[in-house]
Amino acid sequence: MKVNGTHYRSLWWNAEAEVLEIIDQRSLPYKFVTQPVQTLQDFADAIREMRVRGAPLIGATAAYGMARAMADDPSDANMDAAWAFLHDTRPTAINLRWALDRARGLLRPLAEADRAAAALQLAHEIADEDVEINRNIGLHGIEIIREIASRKPQGEPVRLLTHCNAGWIATVDWGTATSPMYQAHDAGIPLHVWVDETRPRNQGALTAWELGSHGVPHSYVTDNAGGHLMQHGLVDMVITGTDRTTRAGDVCNKVGTYLKALAAHDNGVPFYVALPSPTIDWMVRDGVAEIPIEDRDPREVTHVQGTAAGGTLGTVQVTPRGTEVGNPAFDVTPSRLVTGLITERGVCEASEAGLAALFPEHAVAAE
Amino acid sequence: MKVNGTHYRSLWWNAEAEVLEIIDQRSLPYKFVTQPVQTLQDFADAIREMRVRGAPLIGATAAYGMARAMADDPSDANMDAAWAFLHDTRPTAINLRWALDRARGLLRPLAEADRAAAALQLAHEIADEDVEINRNIGLHGIEIIREIASRKPQGEPVRLLTHCNAGWIATVDWGTATSPMYQAHDAGIPLHVWVDETRPRNQGALTAWELGSHGVPHSYVTDNAGGHLMQHGLVDMVITGTDRTTRAGDVCNKVGTYLKALAAHDNGVPFYVALPSPTIDWMVRDGVAEIPIEDRDPREVTHVQGTAAGGTLGTVQVTPRGTEVGNPAFDVTPSRLVTGLITERGVCEASEAGLAALFPEHAVAAE
Repeated sequence: MKVNGTHYRSLWWNAEAEVLEIIDQRSLPYKFVTQPVQTLQDFADAIREMRVRGAPLIGATAAYGMARAMADDPSDANMDAAWAFLHDTRPTAINLRWALDRARGLLRPLAEADRAAAALQLAHEIADEDVEINRNIGLHGIEIIREIASRKPQGEPVRLLTHCNAGWIATVDWGTATSPMYQAHDAGIPLHVWVDETRPRNQGALTAWELGSHGVPHSYVTDNAGGHLMQHGLVDMVITGTDRTTRAGDVCNKVGTYLKALAAHDNGVPFYVALPSPTIDWMVRDGVAEIPIEDRDPREVTHVQGTAAGGTLGTVQVTPRGTEVGNPAFDVTPSRLVTGLITERGVCEASEAGLAALFPEHAVAAE
Repeated sequence: MKVNGTHYRSLWWNAEAEVLEIIDQRSLPYKFVTQPVQTLQDFADAIREMRVRGAPLIGATAAYGMARAMADDPSDANMDAAWAFLHDTRPTAINLRWALDRARGLLRPLAEADRAAAALQLAHEIADEDVEINRNIGLHGIEIIREIASRKPQGEPVRLLTHCNAGWIATVDWGTATSPMYQAHDAGIPLHVWVDETRPRNQGALTAWELGSHGVPHSYVTDNAGGHLMQHGLVDMVITGTDRTTRAGDVCNKVGTYLKALAAHDNGVPFYVALPSPTIDWMVRDGVAEIPIEDRDPREVTHVQGTAAGGTLGTVQVTPRGTEVGNPAFDVTPSRLVTGLITERGVCEASEAGLAALFPEHAVAAE
């Protein structure tokens, strides 16, 4: 999407210099910094240091890393070494492994002389596939927004609320929850987005930066505000992303999503979840009972980062010293509170039947 | 309540030095600083600069200020001047005006020679009355906690969740929502309190400081966490305070309270509100429709204060520069989501009938 009027993906291939260009996401939302990724060590550093973040983006970066390794030395030995070297940067990132396996599976049967070009081509494909999935989520989501807009007085914005950052910088482009917003904005539908702060890591600041950079009107609000806004008719629709959706349509997403879903339900506000189908976990039905929720580092809660005086990055501790902290990172929104799921194949009911109708091949395979 | 093993009120009269002693609440929760308030100017500064905060505490401070003025010069002219001088410090604080009016009403008929002693006596009474109201809230609230404890395995703590700071430092002692907690803790009932951070002003840090200082086990959590905790049976009861309760039992409190009430309702967790009866607004029935909600300074949301490196107080900006902000400060929890109201006269249903049965004189007078 756009930054200062220029269209960016969160990574892109610089064919002239033969390097990958990325946005250093550690500086966001405070500074917009792009940088080249050149050596295999650079690729490993970019992933490990979270200059790139978000499952699809990590996967695509790793695929470009494999292309770099094949350009350096296309032997089987180097292919395996590169696989291990890149995989070890974030061993629990499922998309990282998926991309590396896909690359090695494609390259192994090829003659060494063909591997560098094939690996680069695959990396382009993985990036493009992600863009296409998210673009399609947007094309399905915009129809819901268009329908709401059609019931409003001319010129009055459709007011959306979102939680966390399911935005383009966590994907290659478009984002998931943000894709319908960008599509609607680009199509001239007036929007206003309430951006939840999303404590403890304040990913709302990333969403605000994204929307602001692309020109989508928005307001940043505390996570506490959404219920009040919905009570007073100031939210027409909620759209969030998801980390994992069960085959029955329960949605595991950033903690606090469930509270917004309750408020939406209590006030008759439609609550939609945007998801690429790879985030559907066909092996799980009951999200609350079956999905273990990670309790993360207390420091995420006790300390807050931002720009300090003079524009430098700074950190303050908001709690009394020694305060005990609980930090569950996700929660599960039961499907009964979800109006619909927006996928790359279309919008469906948040239910086993709804998902099975859109993805019959997965629904049957997992039985 | 206790700080470092010593019992404190949030203000107390130092008879020897003839000064009022207060806790400078601007330093909380980072430092515990007490200071004398001596001249009338000191009293005005303490209120204006919010070294004292919370309606009952401001009222009591103003009453002591009037006592100081009468000791200096007990004339009618000085009484009226002191009234105006103190009132102007925070002209919208309803308890400030109430305390000053009460003092002037008592003092006006008295001989000048008797006014200083009478004013000081009244200030003591106003402080003691607040303590007594809050103590009684605790004595009624503890019965609910005791009942929950009786259904638990021996030694397992009753797990409470609270939002904002309805604590002893916002009153003269005990607090409102915290009073049942302190009573239960002092009675040996094992407790664990989930303390909501309460963005944007992070009053949860004050609550954590209070509970920690008195020795009540607790964990600080983001406002987003409560729904997840309730889904997993980790909350036995919610207790919050309130800024204003309608005659029908709708509860206006710090923004985000409504979201916790929805989660409590969805998970069968009892949701109680502790309130001194002066916060009941007998003129209002429908809280959502009738109570205007203040939209406060965006800087409360965009900037976060805490201790920086080196232990000094610091501030960081969490949002991108120029981000638009919404900052509704309160929300209304409809009575249907409230299990009961804990008042100084007892616990009642959150309904017109429930409140009228406990406070028949007000219920009839306002009709």
